[in-house]
Amino acid sequence: MSMNSFGHVFRVTTWGESHGPALGATVDGCPPGVALEAEMIQVWLDKRRPGQNKHTTQRNEPDQVKILSGVYEGKTTGTPIQLMIENTDQRSKDYGEIEKTFRPGHADITYWQKYGIRDPRGGGRSSARETAARVAAGGVAREALKALVPGIEIKGYMTQMGDLHLDREKFDWDAIDSNPFWLPDATAVTEWEDYLHKIRKDNDSVGAAVEVVVRGAPAGLGAPVYAKLDTDLAAAMMSINAVKGVEIGEGMAAAGLRGTTNADEIFMGEDGPEFSSNHAGGILGGISTGQDLVVRFAVKPTSSILTPRKSITKMGEPIEVITKGRHDPCVGIRAVPVGEAMAACVVLDHLLLDRAQTGGARGPIG
Amino acid sequence: MSMNSFGHVFRVTTWGESHGPALGATVDGCPPGVALEAEMIQVWLDKRRPGQNKHTTQRNEPDQVKILSGVYEGKTTGTPIQLMIENTDQRSKDYGEIEKTFRPGHADITYWQKYGIRDPRGGGRSSARETAARVAAGGVAREALKALVPGIEIKGYMTQMGDLHLDREKFDWDAIDSNPFWLPDATAVTEWEDYLHKIRKDNDSVGAAVEVVVRGAPAGLGAPVYAKLDTDLAAAMMSINAVKGVEIGEGMAAAGLRGTTNADEIFMGEDGPEFSSNHAGGILGGISTGQDLVVRFAVKPTSSILTPRKSITKMGEPIEVITKGRHDPCVGIRAVPVGEAMAACVVLDHLLLDRAQTGGARGPIG
Amino acid sequence: MSMNSFGHVFRVTTWGESHGPALGATVDGCPPGVALEAEMIQVWLDKRRPGQNKHTTQRNEPDQVKILSGVYEGKTTGTPIQLMIENTDQRSKDYGEIEKTFRPGHADITYWQKYGIRDPRGGGRSSARETAARVAAGGVAREALKALVPGIEIKGYMTQMGDLHLDREKFDWDAIDSNPFWLPDATAVTEWEDYLHKIRKDNDSVGAAVEVVVRGAPAGLGAPVYAKLDTDLAAAMMSINAVKGVEIGEGMAAAGLRGTTNADEIFMGEDGPEFSSNHAGGILGGISTGQDLVVRFAVKPTSSILTPRKSITKMGEPIEVITKGRHDPCVGIRAVPVGEAMAACVVLDHLLLDRAQTGGARGPIG
Amino acid sequence: MSMNSFGHVFRVTTWGESHGPALGATVDGCPPGVALEAEMIQVWLDKRRPGQNKHTTQRNEPDQVKILSGVYEGKTTGTPIQLMIENTDQRSKDYGEIEKTFRPGHADITYWQKYGIRDPRGGGRSSARETAARVAAGGVAREALKALVPGIEIKGYMTQMGDLHLDREKFDWDAIDSNPFWLPDATAVTEWEDYLHKIRKDNDSVGAAVEVVVRGAPAGLGAPVYAKLDTDLAAAMMSINAVKGVEIGEGMAAAGLRGTTNADEIFMGEDGPEFSSNHAGGILGGISTGQDLVVRFAVKPTSSILTPRKSITKMGEPIEVITKGRHDPCVGIRAVPVGEAMAACVVLDHLLLDRAQTGGARGPIG
Repeated sequence: MSMNSFGHVFRVTTWGESHGPALGATVDGCPPGVALEAEMIQVWLDKRRPGQNKHTTQRNEPDQVKILSGVYEGKTTGTPIQLMIENTDQRSKDYGEIEKTFRPGHADITYWQKYGIRDPRGGGRSSARETAARVAAGGVAREALKALVPGIEIKGYMTQMGDLHLDREKFDWDAIDSNPFWLPDATAVTEWEDYLHKIRKDNDSVGAAVEVVVRGAPAGLGAPVYAKLDTDLAAAMMSINAVKGVEIGEGMAAAGLRGTTNADEIFMGEDGPEFSSNHAGGILGGISTGQDLVVRFAVKPTSSILTPRKSITKMGEPIEVITKGRHDPCVGIRAVPVGEAMAACVVLDHLLLDRAQTGGARGPIG
Repeated sequence: MSMNSFGHVFRVTTWGESHGPALGATVDGCPPGVALEAEMIQVWLDKRRPGQNKHTTQRNEPDQVKILSGVYEGKTTGTPIQLMIENTDQRSKDYGEIEKTFRPGHADITYWQKYGIRDPRGGGRSSARETAARVAAGGVAREALKALVPGIEIKGYMTQMGDLHLDREKFDWDAIDSNPFWLPDATAVTEWEDYLHKIRKDNDSVGAAVEVVVRGAPAGLGAPVYAKLDTDLAAAMMSINAVKGVEIGEGMAAAGLRGTTNADEIFMGEDGPEFSSNHAGGILGGISTGQDLVVRFAVKPTSSILTPRKSITKMGEPIEVITKGRHDPCVGIRAVPVGEAMAACVVLDHLLLDRAQTGGARGPIG
Repeated sequence: MSMNSFGHVFRVTTWGESHGPALGATVDGCPPGVALEAEMIQVWLDKRRPGQNKHTTQRNEPDQVKILSGVYEGKTTGTPIQLMIENTDQRSKDYGEIEKTFRPGHADITYWQKYGIRDPRGGGRSSARETAARVAAGGVAREALKALVPGIEIKGYMTQMGDLHLDREKFDWDAIDSNPFWLPDATAVTEWEDYLHKIRKDNDSVGAAVEVVVRGAPAGLGAPVYAKLDTDLAAAMMSINAVKGVEIGEGMAAAGLRGTTNADEIFMGEDGPEFSSNHAGGILGGISTGQDLVVRFAVKPTSSILTPRKSITKMGEPIEVITKGRHDPCVGIRAVPVGEAMAACVVLDHLLLDRAQTGGARGPIG
Repeated sequence: MSMNSFGHVFRVTTWGESHGPALGATVDGCPPGVALEAEMIQVWLDKRRPGQNKHTTQRNEPDQVKILSGVYEGKTTGTPIQLMIENTDQRSKDYGEIEKTFRPGHADITYWQKYGIRDPRGGGRSSARETAARVAAGGVAREALKALVPGIEIKGYMTQMGDLHLDREKFDWDAIDSNPFWLPDATAVTEWEDYLHKIRKDNDSVGAAVEVVVRGAPAGLGAPVYAKLDTDLAAAMMSINAVKGVEIGEGMAAAGLRGTTNADEIFMGEDGPEFSSNHAGGILGGISTGQDLVVRFAVKPTSSILTPRKSITKMGEPIEVITKGRHDPCVGIRAVPVGEAMAACVVLDHLLLDRAQTGGARGPIG
């Protein structure tokens, strides 16, 4: 029931505030014998890292992960893996004045209302910085998945940023890693850059939608009701800060479809059942079909903007708030590696859970 | 970790198949001393009940709930409450031929792939019938909430059915309970009826979107990251069968907004902080603000349709599938009381969880 | 976190009071495809059943278990298995007067202090009757174990009743099932019967110690610290009502031993490592060695006795309490099948948990 | 279900091996606003610290705890508290040769059998060093308890070491903190010292029994069955490495008692119910009575001894094992602060759990 954990068997507990000495993830339940070095995790942190990307905040944290436990001579031992990232660039003075003010759209007011105390430096636990710990844990999950499901691939990309939408006709899987938006359409990158530049110049921010695809996950992961694979994917994505919506396959658009259109017809392929389409996003009745798992989530525009907004102080006095400091005009960009990490954790967790209950046995078809 | 449970302190485990002798919910962690009689639960089951509503299946189940434990002389004792609903109208022969066939869009194939065995009668656990147990558990949660948070109100309604959308300009809270769609716009009911009639005549089905509002929940429920109130609401709704998307407040539309628009400005009201708008859906940083909690979910069109779809048999042979029997053209209608029940369970659970950690203490404002 | 559940993957939630309409167990996480009929469970309930044994209470409950879900055509489907036992002989009038009195040594006073309400009929959840649900769940665990670990054997027996101790020199495994005490020494049965007869004549009750042995469990079950196999066995036994102590292997006697004596030396046998002794009770560092698992627990004498004891009423007035009704002079006898059931549940659960994390892989020896 | 966590609401996850860079505890669910500084935790670590006490190993670790998160300006914020202890004295060469050998009575062989890999340096997770993390977490629990239950006191002491037993007639609460055995009898200290000296000279080790008393815990903590306060205390103590038995109140001796003796009679005292005795150890029906909570556990003699014992290598070859290095002749001494820490965590956890479900409401008596 831990309020800072997710996962059932592969269970991750994150800890740490934006501006404390360190943050990290305690990763429990990882299979033993998985090859793991800090560098394998670092590559994903570098992908997420602010300052890496000219469209994200210029805070220059190296975000260097250390493995403090659970690994011996380059292999996981089955005991908890502690991943620590020290905060080297704390600059807490940037945030000093917000201690007495509730920024609109931020967790400032709800933290205060719940706990009667809050660490105002950088938003504490509500900072996007917490997601570094997720990305680190996701790096462990990826290595374990690689060992258990050779060839599995997990990739995230943006499908929307404010008024701009990915043109699905031009979808190019290979373009994703070659541009700062992880946009699967190289031809649109300039337009996205210009748009974001304008948002920044407007002292504004903008929302985004991110899609994560898991390719190569086996059929049979998940369960019929509360431990549905889609339930856990939805929870995982919604647990990322600033996320306001989650979709599987057709998602909210399913409300507008008819049964004749929505059903993915089934054929017998060479290696087993195949489907004519993937409206289901790879999940039927909570259990994976073996198709691509497709999950999508919306990230709201960050509330930390240079345009003044009305709010109150702790004393209840009216105030206009401008949030100075280093802030992304579109936090959704950095949410891409975070979404990937969460998907990796969920899929690994369900793989372990499935072999717990069923031993991986399957009903034969054909 | 139970795969058929949800909730942390107020914890519900459902059990039972569509066509077994009975189904039900084991409700653990309910506060003691709450007034509870079977009739208080029955009223919600009647609302959900098929046959009650001319737009839902004509299966004539009384869905009579029995309280088998946890209540003494009309009050909860703090021990587990067992809610049982016997299946009186099993008619399993309707489903006989589907044992060897995988219906497209159904869990048939994934169950088989996971477990190597399945109860084909009525879909087993993947039947919408499982949701009766949720509604019963939600009835308990409502009574406990009533005792703990006088005046709290939980109401669900449809906002979309296929091509038809709720006109928000005409939103009428009082109209909700007076029409079979729980539509907050009495003027549109005829149009919705005609539309659904046509869907049925077309041997087709249609998706829907349902919105649930919790009015009067206190500020301070939830937690910053994995136990975010929105995470648990999302998981709760996504765990309902046929749900493909979940939104809090602006939901997926947040991807299209700017920060200047999205931030709900804060004012000091007579009884504490107030907000100029509710883009956040009543949740900031995972914690309730005291505003209306607004959650929305999409239900896909049922795959049980009379129009033939291509599929395969267990032997891998191609087949055309028509699903006879009693099936709703829009399962989303019945999802309304289910969504309400899930919301009730989540809010109560977080209320208990909050008083566990904080004792209900709050930081003063003003 | 459910307060009425135990187990991680194989998870059992019990419900029901002594004198309500029914009680039972919701069993989640059972592997699919396990042969299961009500009769396979009934045999264990009959073993535990009061009235079956002349040394236990004469309450004549048939304790007939019904499987309400999770089984299709004689096999488990992987969905929750609901086991219900209806209470047919409620005779609640026997207990009427105790509503206003706190029986010394009973949960009456603590229930009242905690919940402010209690079901006084037969002790509610604190009745030994709750253990019928455990025995039923244990019956499911046994069938699953039988399928997964052929040849595994789980047997409980008494090792002490008041002043009488099992003479380990005369230990006879085959005698266990042939006498009403499950005593592994047929020659002592008459003496035990006479002793118990005297206790009953004295209007008194007596404590007991029960030992449960699991023979044939594989090496590798458990984990180094909090999910130690012995931790879960200890919790399982201590969760049985009236249990006041739990021991693994040498148990409390380990406090009196020296390291030279206590270490079980290791040899290489034909099929792998063997041990010269089993002081460890089959568990080293929280993980099974493949030797017999040996767990022992003490059951206090029942507080329901015909000899008057001093107590108070709800109003705080002094009173002398005599507990009439049907009560065992030694509840420890009936604890034997309960202990076996708990051991079966724990071992199965750890088997599933182990295959989740390690896939059952093992380091080779020799 | 995390295999390295304990607790429900106040949830502790420990991590780290004996000879890795660091070890620690992630403490989640702590109430906000509790005064907490590293020094408050350090005092308990110093009590447990090897080298502090001439009867424990001479490994000279400072065991300096750092708080990495969850505390702001000297108060807990309600977010996870990361407690890290760096390993400064790793000397892993002492342990080099044991990599290929299974020490009898150690977890070496079961780790290998389970995981197929193990960190041989100092026993990895099975080292008594893991308990430093528990003691640190217990320090947090103590501060929270102090804030919630003023006057509560938690004290552990030895009651047995090999052949020597505490003389209960001479029990002196005030003597506990003034001798290196935490022995509540100052007159026996010399005898215990001489005894231990002899054990060490014999190249042997010895077991011990430790008793922990919680004085001042309110009535009403716990639950009737699986979340019994005694269940969680038993699990907590049994989860400590080398523990083989756990007792509440009379413990195993309850097997030898009669009901007339065992029942603690109830009187009405000035401030509420009082009891004539405490055979129950402060717990009836799983729920605290308000009396002293009394839990006792046995620690086996360490298997790391200088006397040769027979064993096998990984290759299955016979070998005689002598464990060199720094080892306590009686690990039970250091188990005293560990048992206290676990008791503090369990009592705090149940306090939070109780206010979750009941809000701390109580049935009035008198």
